[in-house]
Amino acid sequence: MKKIKDFLIKNNFDYFLLPNSDEFFSEYLPQNQKRIEFICGFNGSNATIVFGQKKSYFFTDGRYILQAKQQLNLNEFEIINIAEKSLISWLKDNVDKTQNLALDPKLLSKNFIEECESFLSKITFLQKNPIDEIWIDKPIIKASPVFSCPLNLVGENFQQKKSKILDGFLSDAIFISKPENLNWLLNIRSADIEFTPLFLGQALVFKDGKLVIFGDDERFKNIDLHNVEIIPKEKFEEYFKNFSAQNFLIQIDKKTTNYWVCEVFEKNNIKYYNKNCPIEISKAIKNSQEIIGAKKSHYQDAIALLKFLFWLDDAQKKQQIISEISASEKLLELRQKSDHFLYPSFETISGFEANGAIIHYRSTTSTNKEFLGNSLYLFDSGGQYFGNDFCGTTDVTRTIAIGVPSTEMIEDYTRVLKGHIALARIKFPRGTSGSQLDILARSHLWNVGKNYDHGTGHGVGSFLSVHEGPCSISKNSHQALQVGMILSNEPGFYQEGEYGIRLENLMLVTEFDEKFLCFETLTLAPFDFSLIDFKMLTYPEKKWLADYHQNILRTIGEELNYQELSWFISKFNQAPISSFNL
Amino acid sequence: MKKIKDFLIKNNFDYFLLPNSDEFFSEYLPQNQKRIEFICGFNGSNATIVFGQKKSYFFTDGRYILQAKQQLNLNEFEIINIAEKSLISWLKDNVDKTQNLALDPKLLSKNFIEECESFLSKITFLQKNPIDEIWIDKPIIKASPVFSCPLNLVGENFQQKKSKILDGFLSDAIFISKPENLNWLLNIRSADIEFTPLFLGQALVFKDGKLVIFGDDERFKNIDLHNVEIIPKEKFEEYFKNFSAQNFLIQIDKKTTNYWVCEVFEKNNIKYYNKNCPIEISKAIKNSQEIIGAKKSHYQDAIALLKFLFWLDDAQKKQQIISEISASEKLLELRQKSDHFLYPSFETISGFEANGAIIHYRSTTSTNKEFLGNSLYLFDSGGQYFGNDFCGTTDVTRTIAIGVPSTEMIEDYTRVLKGHIALARIKFPRGTSGSQLDILARSHLWNVGKNYDHGTGHGVGSFLSVHEGPCSISKNSHQALQVGMILSNEPGFYQEGEYGIRLENLMLVTEFDEKFLCFETLTLAPFDFSLIDFKMLTYPEKKWLADYHQNILRTIGEELNYQELSWFISKFNQAPISSFNL
Repeated sequence: MKKIKDFLIKNNFDYFLLPNSDEFFSEYLPQNQKRIEFICGFNGSNATIVFGQKKSYFFTDGRYILQAKQQLNLNEFEIINIAEKSLISWLKDNVDKTQNLALDPKLLSKNFIEECESFLSKITFLQKNPIDEIWIDKPIIKASPVFSCPLNLVGENFQQKKSKILDGFLSDAIFISKPENLNWLLNIRSADIEFTPLFLGQALVFKDGKLVIFGDDERFKNIDLHNVEIIPKEKFEEYFKNFSAQNFLIQIDKKTTNYWVCEVFEKNNIKYYNKNCPIEISKAIKNSQEIIGAKKSHYQDAIALLKFLFWLDDAQKKQQIISEISASEKLLELRQKSDHFLYPSFETISGFEANGAIIHYRSTTSTNKEFLGNSLYLFDSGGQYFGNDFCGTTDVTRTIAIGVPSTEMIEDYTRVLKGHIALARIKFPRGTSGSQLDILARSHLWNVGKNYDHGTGHGVGSFLSVHEGPCSISKNSHQALQVGMILSNEPGFYQEGEYGIRLENLMLVTEFDEKFLCFETLTLAPFDFSLIDFKMLTYPEKKWLADYHQNILRTIGEELNYQELSWFISKFNQAPISSFNL
Repeated sequence: MKKIKDFLIKNNFDYFLLPNSDEFFSEYLPQNQKRIEFICGFNGSNATIVFGQKKSYFFTDGRYILQAKQQLNLNEFEIINIAEKSLISWLKDNVDKTQNLALDPKLLSKNFIEECESFLSKITFLQKNPIDEIWIDKPIIKASPVFSCPLNLVGENFQQKKSKILDGFLSDAIFISKPENLNWLLNIRSADIEFTPLFLGQALVFKDGKLVIFGDDERFKNIDLHNVEIIPKEKFEEYFKNFSAQNFLIQIDKKTTNYWVCEVFEKNNIKYYNKNCPIEISKAIKNSQEIIGAKKSHYQDAIALLKFLFWLDDAQKKQQIISEISASEKLLELRQKSDHFLYPSFETISGFEANGAIIHYRSTTSTNKEFLGNSLYLFDSGGQYFGNDFCGTTDVTRTIAIGVPSTEMIEDYTRVLKGHIALARIKFPRGTSGSQLDILARSHLWNVGKNYDHGTGHGVGSFLSVHEGPCSISKNSHQALQVGMILSNEPGFYQEGEYGIRLENLMLVTEFDEKFLCFETLTLAPFDFSLIDFKMLTYPEKKWLADYHQNILRTIGEELNYQELSWFISKFNQAPISSFNL
């Protein structure tokens, strides 16, 4: 910290703004990009620091306030909840026109910096990030090779995908700023970050079909790419030097393109304009092979989930002590039994009791709770699956009673479940967006003055990011849902300091009839019937539950051993059937 | 029509664009502004004509296509449904850069013309409207006096309202383009148009509190207005001549300010910028006196509605023949029994059988149906109430079985009712907008592949327009609902050629607790229990229905005679109570 202050003073900067990101704004950062963790020890995902000569300001959201308080030196940092004061509004109020703000133009989007420029007059764009100067033992990352996903897994080849993207295209080229979009377009993957099988790189697609990747040639040596040129990343600036004479026009997405890239374009008199990357929507609409991959991945996931739930129940009966960490290890071990399982699609959330109420909880040896007493256990996990015959990404959350649940827990669980079922059952006209559907998952909680402070659903990639745009189910999501999109359905309820509930399945948007669409639930994992007050369910809700559990049994029954099967039938089949006769 | 074509040819105009509006974009037009009705006989509300030298194009929405076909000379006009081809997109495709489009700058908004200017290069702004030149016997309208609404009716005086509007205000003045906003601000009303008690005028509020009305001095002679100057409308241009030297900045709303006004500002070097008029939101949030007025108006309305429903039922029993027109006359006669009733708040929709499926149906002697056979009768009506002690505006729709309803009618009615109840019962966090709630009224229809092609709810004025912004309940309504807003709740279902169903109550947004809001239903009119399949209702829905009808009885029971009372109790009280015991 002293070195950063010295840097500010020496250069006469009032502030240095550092976001927790890399040049691609990836959800998960490579080890050598975790500058915030290096400088202050904070290892949550959402953080921005504004370093000052005396005091520094740490911005994060409600999920991480507690963690920040524990991990930061509070003499150095003031922690600010962005729900109470956004970074932009803080800058407006605290940085005056005479003050000099320094930042790294590679780590911030064109959009964000344009907004800053609208009210700040002195911004210095640094050539080198000062953290990198201090970070002497920065890990050196050995780049993995890039590999191809065969056509029987991804359903469409590069040429087919490219022609869709370039259809009706007007400028000279599109700059592909998001690695996910490039990986999808080229049907390539790699291992540059945890949880998502990405090659981190950007590219330019020309209207004549030529593609230029900015990356390391060596990494592509096993891949046969026609009409593709690879330019070393270091030569990015140089590459654009001869463009100016051609009156060249590039389409970019300002939200996901870093400021430095735009600077390079401007220096070379390359014109550019802002538009959503056309890959976003194509990538979101899964083709039939991708849908098969999603279903097969969920089949594999379901076996592990069912065996895990049996193991949990059995361990309770045998009074074995389980902890958050041992449970998540067991779940990983069961997933690993599938030869298609690569690794988790995000860091598993495994939270008992009050820890379950922390929305993005990460269990550590110091927070790890043993499952003692009467409360709830929430686990949110998923896998990246990849093999010869299919690939896909899963994401599922279940909440399980440990001991005897209270009436309040049962009522809350049932309300969350009613919301989950309402969304799963809805039929909706084409053109409907997630913002219209969101309330279905919330109204049963709202009617008793309760709510949850996160979106109801996010898009999910196909052996790609577990969180994927542009579709989602939340208040502000105006993208129309289309056949082939995969979204999560994950309402929750969190009683702070006591317990958390979240019930998450993935759903595929499918056609109901000429005018209407509906969801097909992909996730196959039983709900905890001991947490359901069946009197609170309507007949159609009970019918949905019965059908859902019968479908699990029909689909993965043959993968279960005798013990597991009889446990499933006694627990999830008998009980609802009798309830359904109500 | 020949005269218009001659006008085009003589002036070398390719097209003349005429919207069905006046300079204020009023929902109802004064007789001397009904240019479209004069020139072609069409008397619906939504219409725009693009006159050409040979052929002319008539743009309207789905509600009016049939009517346009009946009323227009089809040799002269091509009718275009704006849902299939919007006016803007038609202009883009059909008017090329060499062609000259003429229009009346007073009848179109700045917003609309700016959009046209972005793709049309030759627009001629006419000094005089050519229709007015032809329209020799144009009705001369004797202006009514403007009257004041006393403070005990409107709750806040002009000064209080003005200081709210000017709070934090930055420019030199606000131009009030919408007459509703001016009437609300000054607590004045008049009788310039049908159904809405408006003085049609505009004004300028200066930041020092001074107000200038553009209108006829004579009309204000009975009113005591402090710090208000009245400038004759004809002197509008002249008035602004001496502003340029002062570097004057005016806030306008481009959606509701006609182009000609902006031209006047520009000619005089007056700067202006676009922002929503701050009166909009203040007007939408009713104060306690306005809420009392709304409730008392609904009380008066409820007496008429209940007596009307009794009369309808009684006439059916006695096998008297009723028609759409005789029914709406009876309803008007019953409303007129209240000494506070002024006139209907819009043209009553009274539609039997297939006419009920025409969303904005207007019964004429040629379309009037007698109530014969088994079908549904839909009536949508409301009143403007004004007296010494209260004023207010109502709007209500009920659908009644005539004869024996079919199973399909009952199921459709019950689904519409379930949607109505879901919206009426919801509790929602502060900040929630109508777009989030809309699906509550639709999901029971969607789940059987049905829908309705209109919004679910609109804002309602306080002794002002029955349709009032900025709040509404529909897919695209992102205005957060706030305590004191009054909105309609009117889902429907229309089986074309057979029957229409709509169930409309007005609701007041009220506080549920610190975090949550809810609706209080204002309308007091029974639903038709013979159209409800009680087996399709959940317990909370039945409970809501029972409470609603008990509240009607408790509130207006004493206004009913013995016959009406026993009819009500037998029909709406006994039946649900037994059903509710399910």
